[in-house]
Amino acid sequence: MRLAVIGGVAAGLSAASRARRLDPRLEIVVLEKSDSVSYAACGLPYFVAGRVGDWRDLVVYDAAYFSRERRIEVRTRAEVKEIQHARRRLELASGEHVTYEKLVIATGARQDRQAIPGSTLPLVYSMNTPAEAVRLKQQLERVKPRRAAVIGGGYIGLEAAEALRTYGWRVMLLERGADLLQREDSELTRRIATHLDWFGVDLRLGYAVKSITEGGVDDEKADLVVLASGLKPNVDLARAAGAELGQSGAIRVNDRMETSLGGIYAAGDCAESMHLVTGRHCWIPLGTTANKMGRVAGACAAGARERFPGVVGTSIVRVCGLGVAITGLSAAQARREGLQPVSVWTKSRDRARYFRGRPVEVELVADRASGRLLGGCVVGEQAVAGRINVIATALHARMSLEDFSQLDLAYAPPFAPVWDPVLMAARQLRKRL
Amino acid sequence: MRLAVIGGVAAGLSAASRARRLDPRLEIVVLEKSDSVSYAACGLPYFVAGRVGDWRDLVVYDAAYFSRERRIEVRTRAEVKEIQHARRRLELASGEHVTYEKLVIATGARQDRQAIPGSTLPLVYSMNTPAEAVRLKQQLERVKPRRAAVIGGGYIGLEAAEALRTYGWRVMLLERGADLLQREDSELTRRIATHLDWFGVDLRLGYAVKSITEGGVDDEKADLVVLASGLKPNVDLARAAGAELGQSGAIRVNDRMETSLGGIYAAGDCAESMHLVTGRHCWIPLGTTANKMGRVAGACAAGARERFPGVVGTSIVRVCGLGVAITGLSAAQARREGLQPVSVWTKSRDRARYFRGRPVEVELVADRASGRLLGGCVVGEQAVAGRINVIATALHARMSLEDFSQLDLAYAPPFAPVWDPVLMAARQLRKRL
Repeated sequence: MRLAVIGGVAAGLSAASRARRLDPRLEIVVLEKSDSVSYAACGLPYFVAGRVGDWRDLVVYDAAYFSRERRIEVRTRAEVKEIQHARRRLELASGEHVTYEKLVIATGARQDRQAIPGSTLPLVYSMNTPAEAVRLKQQLERVKPRRAAVIGGGYIGLEAAEALRTYGWRVMLLERGADLLQREDSELTRRIATHLDWFGVDLRLGYAVKSITEGGVDDEKADLVVLASGLKPNVDLARAAGAELGQSGAIRVNDRMETSLGGIYAAGDCAESMHLVTGRHCWIPLGTTANKMGRVAGACAAGARERFPGVVGTSIVRVCGLGVAITGLSAAQARREGLQPVSVWTKSRDRARYFRGRPVEVELVADRASGRLLGGCVVGEQAVAGRINVIATALHARMSLEDFSQLDLAYAPPFAPVWDPVLMAARQLRKRL
Repeated sequence: MRLAVIGGVAAGLSAASRARRLDPRLEIVVLEKSDSVSYAACGLPYFVAGRVGDWRDLVVYDAAYFSRERRIEVRTRAEVKEIQHARRRLELASGEHVTYEKLVIATGARQDRQAIPGSTLPLVYSMNTPAEAVRLKQQLERVKPRRAAVIGGGYIGLEAAEALRTYGWRVMLLERGADLLQREDSELTRRIATHLDWFGVDLRLGYAVKSITEGGVDDEKADLVVLASGLKPNVDLARAAGAELGQSGAIRVNDRMETSLGGIYAAGDCAESMHLVTGRHCWIPLGTTANKMGRVAGACAAGARERFPGVVGTSIVRVCGLGVAITGLSAAQARREGLQPVSVWTKSRDRARYFRGRPVEVELVADRASGRLLGGCVVGEQAVAGRINVIATALHARMSLEDFSQLDLAYAPPFAPVWDPVLMAARQLRKRL
């Protein structure tokens, strides 16, 4: 039996590797349209910022590794033009056909460059692919720092702003919506905005870019533009083949990563996942989720019965040195789900003062009707990931705020205060329930 | 109505403060036999090590604060000799009587100094009370470093060993059992032992001290001995009053912190708590638990209906710079509970290599029969607390290993690798289930 996988980054190669492990006899071919596979895309902003010397250091394994160690045929520069599912074959751009019995679509996401006129001009850069990141870094190393505009206030835009500041550029960050990180949390946005200001990033919220010219963005002068908005699931092939899409525009899958077409699976940034707090499908493209989905798609394509239950919307980003992490729903998002959110922000220290405890702020959101924990944010310099992960774990377990407030968390002076900041926040929020 | 509290440290003052907040009219008296209240006892080893200049910096609030801000009468040097519950009064050492309607016993733990002959000799120190810690620190600052023996391989013994090494002492660490941290986990013990050896601590396991003399411990020469073993719940008053004790020797309480005697509550290191993994009572004296128990005892004594569900056995300790954290059950402990544990240790990095990711080791234990997660350990230099807390939260939720392996945890290169070490361990352990 042959398994074909379209896409050779996180989800595609996780699927192929997992299928290989479960079925040593399977024939597996991975088709990647670019010339690079298996690179850590999330590292590209840090390559641009100079933290990683060569982008190839971000490559986990090369095509030869997959062939040699896992007997997976990885073909680069192999662009699929059409899924001809009735004939169980793929037509490549070269005209060649590749047949399959099982197919995993892992075509990822792409930036909609048509959305903003002028976005293909030479002064416009992105960090979506190694080639684009290399082009941006070369420019930053070549020219004297001047004025840059970053379009998009999601995590890639925030990482881009940080990277540009390290080269000494004056940075304007333009976000169309009222909030950063697509979080609908004005308190969180205010905290990040204060920090951006402190680092010399000129944030403009509610700024919908009309067009880019050689001179800048709309009426704002800029010598360089980083486009970090307009990410869309890359679903052209799947849609043309007749796979059902969800409301988000991404490919609808069940918890086995099956699309509406028998024998075709989808995983990664092109696919939806279940949001375990809302109980509805969502599109939250992230590398961690892509890896998990890919493993389940590969396992199920190889005949195993595994499932991917879904996500709770956890993410973390470093914003000019500040750790910002979110999970679950903000109060505004919860309200739109018909819930009755109560929330609180608390400020405490991340460990004992004599261990140089640093300020950390925690927001928790809970539902007044059910008492259930709905989401949270953690903002601070240190130990942010661990604390958001505790909240995320509680969301997976549908824990009540009361149970959450009694968690037996680790304490010793070098590591935490006796009341961990997340427990402190839980205590405060219980008073409002 | 009057609430009396015996003991003025973590549990006692949490109980008094919580009762005050819930009932402004309550009369509250706290009786503390020593002359200091409300100090962070867990900080004493770091005071000895020189991290904290003055032990008074560990005092959170003084007696005057409680009187002024919370209208709680805190009496120091007020030793209770007897609980005369039939008459609802306490008899103090001074002969005075203090009446009550509700009583919270928060008498803590104490070291059994009778257990080892010679343990009251001048060369024997401890870190249990501010006075003892001051005496030890003065000695360390006064004399040239020579040979020291630390008796007890629990977290206080390990912290003592670290503190003595910072003064340049040669340290022998003597533990009666086969394992450190009372964990019954030979793999964990081996990892800590390797690290202790690297830091010049001479660890002797299975070493039951017979006696201490002016010259040292048994046949081992030592110029200074730190006693960090033999901690026992301080239950004399409760037992004499007729309160039921558990198998552990600590005071038996229900989830409202009620003892077997109506109107008498117990909280903190003198009381048992429910172990949420075994479903049985246990005695795990820790400051965090004492605070939580105290709050619930105070709330219930003031007439509210709150509950303390229990603990999962989480703790963390810094061992000569290495973070060591445990939660739930080890495989050996699970086996004694009649479970069928499978376990795995995995070694990975705590974040991307280009963010100076450092090695971190994770152990997970799960039950083969039910698939449920039972416990874990995390050992590493950084981000240890956050990871053990994720495991602890999953234990509270009785999560299966399968669900645990799909947790939506935060990822970005500055914070974590794409597969968090705890998820990596879960993936490995699933293969053995």
